Amino acid sequence: MLDCGRYPVKRSLGDEVEVWADVFCDGHDLMRAAVRYRPPGARRWLEAPMEPIGSDRWHGSFSVDALGRWQYAIGAWVDRWASWRWEIDRKLEGGQTEFSSELIEGAALAGVETLTLERALDPASAPKLPRESETTVPPLELIVDRELARFGSWYELFPRSFGGFAGVRAQLPRLAELGFDVVYMPPIHPIGRTHRKGRNNSLVAGPDDPGSPWAIGGPEGGHTAVDPSLGTLADFDRLVARGRELGVEIALDFAIQCSPDHPWLVEHPEWFHRRPDGTLKYAENPPKRYQDIYNVNFDSPDWESLWRALRDVVGFWVGHGVRVFRVDNPHTKPVAFWEWLIRDVQTAHPDVIFLAEAFTRPAMMSTLAKLGFSQSYTYFTWRNTKAELVDFMTSLTRSEWPQFYRPNLFANTPDILHAYLQRGGRPAFEARLVLAATLSPAYGIYSGFENFENVPVHEGSEEYLNSEKYEIRERALDGQLLSLVARLNAARRDNPALQRLDNITFVETENAELIAYAKREGRNRVLCVVNLDPIEPREGVVIVPAALGLPPTFRVRDLLDDTVYTWHVGRNYVRLEPGTRQAHVLRVEQ
Amino acid sequence: MLDCGRYPVKRSLGDEVEVWADVFCDGHDLMRAAVRYRPPGARRWLEAPMEPIGSDRWHGSFSVDALGRWQYAIGAWVDRWASWRWEIDRKLEGGQTEFSSELIEGAALAGVETLTLERALDPASAPKLPRESETTVPPLELIVDRELARFGSWYELFPRSFGGFAGVRAQLPRLAELGFDVVYMPPIHPIGRTHRKGRNNSLVAGPDDPGSPWAIGGPEGGHTAVDPSLGTLADFDRLVARGRELGVEIALDFAIQCSPDHPWLVEHPEWFHRRPDGTLKYAENPPKRYQDIYNVNFDSPDWESLWRALRDVVGFWVGHGVRVFRVDNPHTKPVAFWEWLIRDVQTAHPDVIFLAEAFTRPAMMSTLAKLGFSQSYTYFTWRNTKAELVDFMTSLTRSEWPQFYRPNLFANTPDILHAYLQRGGRPAFEARLVLAATLSPAYGIYSGFENFENVPVHEGSEEYLNSEKYEIRERALDGQLLSLVARLNAARRDNPALQRLDNITFVETENAELIAYAKREGRNRVLCVVNLDPIEPREGVVIVPAALGLPPTFRVRDLLDDTVYTWHVGRNYVRLEPGTRQAHVLRVEQ
Repeated sequence: MLDCGRYPVKRSLGDEVEVWADVFCDGHDLMRAAVRYRPPGARRWLEAPMEPIGSDRWHGSFSVDALGRWQYAIGAWVDRWASWRWEIDRKLEGGQTEFSSELIEGAALAGVETLTLERALDPASAPKLPRESETTVPPLELIVDRELARFGSWYELFPRSFGGFAGVRAQLPRLAELGFDVVYMPPIHPIGRTHRKGRNNSLVAGPDDPGSPWAIGGPEGGHTAVDPSLGTLADFDRLVARGRELGVEIALDFAIQCSPDHPWLVEHPEWFHRRPDGTLKYAENPPKRYQDIYNVNFDSPDWESLWRALRDVVGFWVGHGVRVFRVDNPHTKPVAFWEWLIRDVQTAHPDVIFLAEAFTRPAMMSTLAKLGFSQSYTYFTWRNTKAELVDFMTSLTRSEWPQFYRPNLFANTPDILHAYLQRGGRPAFEARLVLAATLSPAYGIYSGFENFENVPVHEGSEEYLNSEKYEIRERALDGQLLSLVARLNAARRDNPALQRLDNITFVETENAELIAYAKREGRNRVLCVVNLDPIEPREGVVIVPAALGLPPTFRVRDLLDDTVYTWHVGRNYVRLEPGTRQAHVLRVEQ
Repeated sequence: MLDCGRYPVKRSLGDEVEVWADVFCDGHDLMRAAVRYRPPGARRWLEAPMEPIGSDRWHGSFSVDALGRWQYAIGAWVDRWASWRWEIDRKLEGGQTEFSSELIEGAALAGVETLTLERALDPASAPKLPRESETTVPPLELIVDRELARFGSWYELFPRSFGGFAGVRAQLPRLAELGFDVVYMPPIHPIGRTHRKGRNNSLVAGPDDPGSPWAIGGPEGGHTAVDPSLGTLADFDRLVARGRELGVEIALDFAIQCSPDHPWLVEHPEWFHRRPDGTLKYAENPPKRYQDIYNVNFDSPDWESLWRALRDVVGFWVGHGVRVFRVDNPHTKPVAFWEWLIRDVQTAHPDVIFLAEAFTRPAMMSTLAKLGFSQSYTYFTWRNTKAELVDFMTSLTRSEWPQFYRPNLFANTPDILHAYLQRGGRPAFEARLVLAATLSPAYGIYSGFENFENVPVHEGSEEYLNSEKYEIRERALDGQLLSLVARLNAARRDNPALQRLDNITFVETENAELIAYAKREGRNRVLCVVNLDPIEPREGVVIVPAALGLPPTFRVRDLLDDTVYTWHVGRNYVRLEPGTRQAHVLRVEQ
């Protein structure tokens, strides 16, 4: 139960939902309890029995086979017949032989004229009594998403660098072959001309500079138009359709800000912040000014039509087959807006997935996830040492976070080129790729990663030099890292242990640069060891604890190169040398 | 917050109530927050500011100076002026010099015609703006009890063994001198004759057997009458009045069952369970039968008049000056009944204290405490080894239990003579007395303890031989343990550290028979060491951890015999020899 039932917990299709409750009453009466649950849109409540597991704690479960918002509750009641039977049994044990008064009571309970002791003791003749004093708890909500909300491999690309929608479409078979489930594209809409940013974020754009896709809106239209240089809406539809054939989903960016040329500034000036002189007010994050961006005013007097218009933007793209949205900076918009929008969209389309791009403090990040975002960005890119990574994963899997927060570990983004990658070269990219793909069931890379692109715009910056945000790059899927990507994505699909988040156990290595962890799902077990040092070979001892339940000696297969090793509960020597082998992803063989 | 605000937390008079909350909003606006609180019966809400303590967590507090049910809540709002000022400051830092547009905005905010930058930057001229978008949480409840609900020394006695009310009154000065705060008496009402129990719980009473006080009700009356052999109601009033003069409260037993001779069986047969033949049904706990007891039927059709009658019993004794009730077996009655009764009584008399005598599983014991019982019996008597005691205290001080559960550690009761006392003799009594009096701010002994009475009715039983429950014992306050009792009670009154429960830290001793713990309140610190072995001398090393914050070397005074020792952070040799010294209660000297 999240925040006293204020927010729903999350599951994905096919999951078993486990429910625990303390069930007790005064006196010695015997109780029964059940989980009650109602699939989305169903009128009737279903029920699964709960069983006592000790000290008044009861347990029950049900499985979820439909997308959307389920309800569940708990009912508990006194079993009057069983309580009566229990007393008879105790009296028999105590040597009592005369039961006439008890049998009259039992007959009254059972609603029969007379009752014999023999019949009373026959379990087959126990009457079905109406539930007495049934107590229920207020229903709680449960969001059931597609498996993709939990488990998926993402590839982020700027379509303009791949030749627009048609060019991306041509790459889809290769992306599918590499094992990607989602291709996420930054905004595809017309880009503003006024105050357009030039290359490397310069304040003045050259005549051929394409501008930042996040400066949304131009004469050609706003959030429901496509940038003509990428193709037509029909081309976009063909892209989505081809993706569907290949099992690759096209994810769009939902970024609410508007360029100075967005049609809404003229059509709906009442939706924007104004200066005292009545002119519209561009975005600021003092002392920074964003003259190429206008933020909408969620508190404007006409907020209802604004909120609906934004919801309709999402609806428009849902109508064009899009089911995955990456949401830009949701933490700077009202949480009530997101809660309403996500519920509204998912009521009609429970297969829609929203990924929150919020980098802020835990209270807001967790609240966005609780109110409905299906997935969330994280601080993964900034967690590079072993201690940082263990802390990070612990914070994501501790307490109730796994009930609502699904991290999507991007190894890089157009905004984040971490110093670790800048300095570590190819081995650093390998280490981070393996970490992202094995720590979390959802992960992603932004194109260029596979080519080891790692030059910052200037020393100390996390921005890329010649960032694709402000110019067109000619790209092809030819990076040398792609063979490792394909290996990892295949390993992820083949191993259920890599499709869950909170099944992780960190394992001692006796080396601060070697991180090791085990994941398990049913009989499937994977052990990962990564050398976090991109320069030096590191050796250590992976100490497999007995608590993992493995046999004293077992064989493991490295899913990255099919080498087979013999490992032991206890100490296993490991040496990982940058340039030769940065990591092991070992599946325990049966 | 207990169970999402379903139950109140508890504090005692003069306590500081600390409140934490996550306070945040979308965007960059600055926020303010306050704890709002309302004393019992007050119409107006008061407010104390909250301050941020990091990562969106805020803290505030208020102190409680009135008995009864307080309400408290949290309010948070955007400080529009501070947010505007923050932007000006950032822009100044960024080198901006032209602020005409900002100053017009600021003037509009402040509701003035014009605003200069100088004036805007002057903290003294910050306008008091109405709170914008104030968000509040639903109020929570808080019970404020007397200090006695938290901290008190109890003595249980059967008045018939001390010569009735007059005899007890004569002992009150001595009891006050010994440091007792509460004298608790088992039921003082007329005792049934029908099926009266004889000595040692025999089924047939002799002609002079006085019967069990818990078989309440006879021809002389029921729950609002006094047993004539103890004195009159006027004698009782004199006892209560004398106690008030001496600072000793008289606590009564509220036991709801009725003897076969209770007037209610005739006056209100509809309040009782019936057999099929229409006769009233005596109590059973199959296979045991209690023919001397009839339980009321809380679900009877006329339950409302029954509940009111029971509430009026409590009200009757409150009218006779009683403010402390020990409640017999509350877990066999409906929790809704107790919640209603306690709230009803305390609404008029917030100084009334209810002690729950429930020995059952944690779910029910904690629920009784949450719904309003001021104090609760515990399993202390059965926790005798070091590991058991540490577990026991950890379970009482862990998580949110201290917010609602106040244990009263009785070292013995008329029902519980533990094998440890039966076998260990005087040193066992000393150990258990020191443990009860120093582990918990509330503790008690039942008379006879000070005389080392330890003979069970038969081997393997926890019942006393010749139990006072069924016969009259001639008693006087002459036990040899009373000097230790007086020492401990004085130490408890002099040392605030012994007046709190969850300020305990267990300390290593390198001996499984030596238990050691430190308690701290402000500058007052007490270190206790108890030899749990009543037979053999035990020696060990009390390792004072640096984390306690004591100086490297410090002096301690044993409050049991005024010996002074020099102790150190680190290892301190201790030897405790049964018969000579069973425990240290060491106050750290300033």
